[in-house]
Amino acid sequence: MLGLLRKHGPLSRGELGKRCGLSRTTLYDILAELVATGAVVTATSQEAPRGRGRPAETLTLNPDAGQAIGIDFARRALHVAAVNLAHEVVGSASEPHDAGLPWKERVELAVRLVGSLTGTRTGAGALRLGALDAIGVGVVGVVGSQHAGDEEAAPHPVQVLLRERFGVPVLLDNNTRLAALGESIWGAAAGGQDVLYLRLSHGVGGGLVVGGSLHRGAYGLSGEFGHITVEPGGARCDCGGTGCLETVASIRAVLDAFRAAGGRAADVAELVKAVRAGDRTALTLLDGVGARIGEVLAALCNAIGPSVIVIGGELAETGPALVEPIERALHDHVMPVSRHRVSLRRATLGEVAGALGGIALVLHESPLLSRYPAGPDLAEDPIPDKESR
Amino acid sequence: MLGLLRKHGPLSRGELGKRCGLSRTTLYDILAELVATGAVVTATSQEAPRGRGRPAETLTLNPDAGQAIGIDFARRALHVAAVNLAHEVVGSASEPHDAGLPWKERVELAVRLVGSLTGTRTGAGALRLGALDAIGVGVVGVVGSQHAGDEEAAPHPVQVLLRERFGVPVLLDNNTRLAALGESIWGAAAGGQDVLYLRLSHGVGGGLVVGGSLHRGAYGLSGEFGHITVEPGGARCDCGGTGCLETVASIRAVLDAFRAAGGRAADVAELVKAVRAGDRTALTLLDGVGARIGEVLAALCNAIGPSVIVIGGELAETGPALVEPIERALHDHVMPVSRHRVSLRRATLGEVAGALGGIALVLHESPLLSRYPAGPDLAEDPIPDKESR
Repeated sequence: MLGLLRKHGPLSRGELGKRCGLSRTTLYDILAELVATGAVVTATSQEAPRGRGRPAETLTLNPDAGQAIGIDFARRALHVAAVNLAHEVVGSASEPHDAGLPWKERVELAVRLVGSLTGTRTGAGALRLGALDAIGVGVVGVVGSQHAGDEEAAPHPVQVLLRERFGVPVLLDNNTRLAALGESIWGAAAGGQDVLYLRLSHGVGGGLVVGGSLHRGAYGLSGEFGHITVEPGGARCDCGGTGCLETVASIRAVLDAFRAAGGRAADVAELVKAVRAGDRTALTLLDGVGARIGEVLAALCNAIGPSVIVIGGELAETGPALVEPIERALHDHVMPVSRHRVSLRRATLGEVAGALGGIALVLHESPLLSRYPAGPDLAEDPIPDKESR
Repeated sequence: MLGLLRKHGPLSRGELGKRCGLSRTTLYDILAELVATGAVVTATSQEAPRGRGRPAETLTLNPDAGQAIGIDFARRALHVAAVNLAHEVVGSASEPHDAGLPWKERVELAVRLVGSLTGTRTGAGALRLGALDAIGVGVVGVVGSQHAGDEEAAPHPVQVLLRERFGVPVLLDNNTRLAALGESIWGAAAGGQDVLYLRLSHGVGGGLVVGGSLHRGAYGLSGEFGHITVEPGGARCDCGGTGCLETVASIRAVLDAFRAAGGRAADVAELVKAVRAGDRTALTLLDGVGARIGEVLAALCNAIGPSVIVIGGELAETGPALVEPIERALHDHVMPVSRHRVSLRRATLGEVAGALGGIALVLHESPLLSRYPAGPDLAEDPIPDKESR
């Protein structure tokens, strides 16, 4: 029961019953006990269920009983977010830095930003570091499965440093994959169980949420949508391949192509300005780039069957000029039977998506949190989430 | 513990400990009780662990305590298999029939084939119908998620008919997806947690196993690899699209192309003969078809990150003439960092893969079986698998 509330946030008794498969009597007995001990609290949902009857009472983990921190160590900036156990975002903060900043100084910066959140009061209350249970961290690059029983990878330097500073477990994943998880819980695909997230930034990457959980792939190499070949024999890519989607749809690729076609833009902001001014060169270029992206997404839809596709990253700021050709190509190339079943949306969490995804990692997976509260019986409950990957 | 043994088959105490996260003491107490009640039995593994020390004792569900039946209602044949709770295949049987055979008669045929298994003795013992717990069934075509809480689809006619005849729950999925699950447990990818299965037959389709479980996709529309566009503006496909992989790599497409190039082959068997005789036309054709398949697989590898790709279906009988160009294109187009991490294998279960996958569905997912044995405490354990999708 605690695991379900930890993973899904507030749920009604009916929803809990459906998900756990217990009999009504057993369910109500367990819930009564959890409410009596203060581990679980009740709240009346604002929305009446299907517009009729009295509002459903929902149950949630006691928000004061613990918090989780997420930190995204991006290439040139640090993003931090905190969420309580009721899934409410307590606060977030960001700070840019040089790409070359050493890990030790990045961790100092993280400690400072996390500290600043303790002063941030919101409706959900302030962060209390004493109640911190675990930290979820996003980093750039390939992160293998930490959970494959037989391959014990050496901890990432940031795991060691953060553990020293905070004294709690540090869970790690690729920050773009974590952004996918964040968008599927708090962002554009909130509530989506099967979500594909594509980030169009300096690199092109993404992540998959499968059945509500982050999908890592056998070697932590999933979500590499930017390295799918779209132009056989095309431009050389940083990955060592040629003609990858990234050579067509990254910020640099798009700006280079814009300038080669006679356009003027030093960065994405200027490209967005040109698009808004109706610049034909920019619109034609994005039309072509969007078509390529849409073709790749259609192939992935046929294979994976997501209900929501989320487009994030700076290039998504170009808006309909890019999203509409993506949608057209997706429609043209996805199996006709799937056409109206997948919805394409722009990301909503911005730069904090990865940090929020780190928190989701903690809420979904931390063995420590799964034992909360540490009563003698509850502490040894099986951990369903560990088995689900 | 019962859920883990049901899903994974025989495991050592150490493996069980890793997967459940319980303390050693608790684990050993629970196991001692399960062995004392006869629900779980011990066996000494034949293979010494990593070649040293004494052989590890494994635990398994009592094989005599129940069986599961799988039935694949393919287009023109019926395949049946039975497995006991120790994951041992008790028997299998197949029979071809007309494509137009009505469901009622197909179910009669299934009843007869299942009945024939009760007489089939193997090392694992005979099927005892009295101990039947559930039936897993594969059918052709789109099968939506049965588990999405809010969409209660009407039962498939075959579910109704089989339930009437056997009086047990009938779980259903697409038979090609089930073949993926079967291959990941008993076949070419046995033990693989992240498996991509491609079937090259009259249609081109497949399935994904993600974290050891069958991936359905949001609307039961995953694994449609045959409808990924490989030739924009190419031939019309039965799905309504154009230039789909199926228009290049299905049996009909390959035989048509072979004949158009001057080759002679009435069916796959004759094509295989031509290939074995070194027919240049056949080899050149398969080289091109394999390249297309490999490009699609590379894109999917980058996105999904499987550890094993299994190639099944009749066209896989052409052997290296097809598999080698697939492998070359996969190697050329997958991200360089992933190149040696994915292994390409031919399917090994043949036509019984779908029926075995149906059994896996039962072993993984049946709420009934998850309550086995029906003791008052065990019967109300939470059901981790239900939460894992």
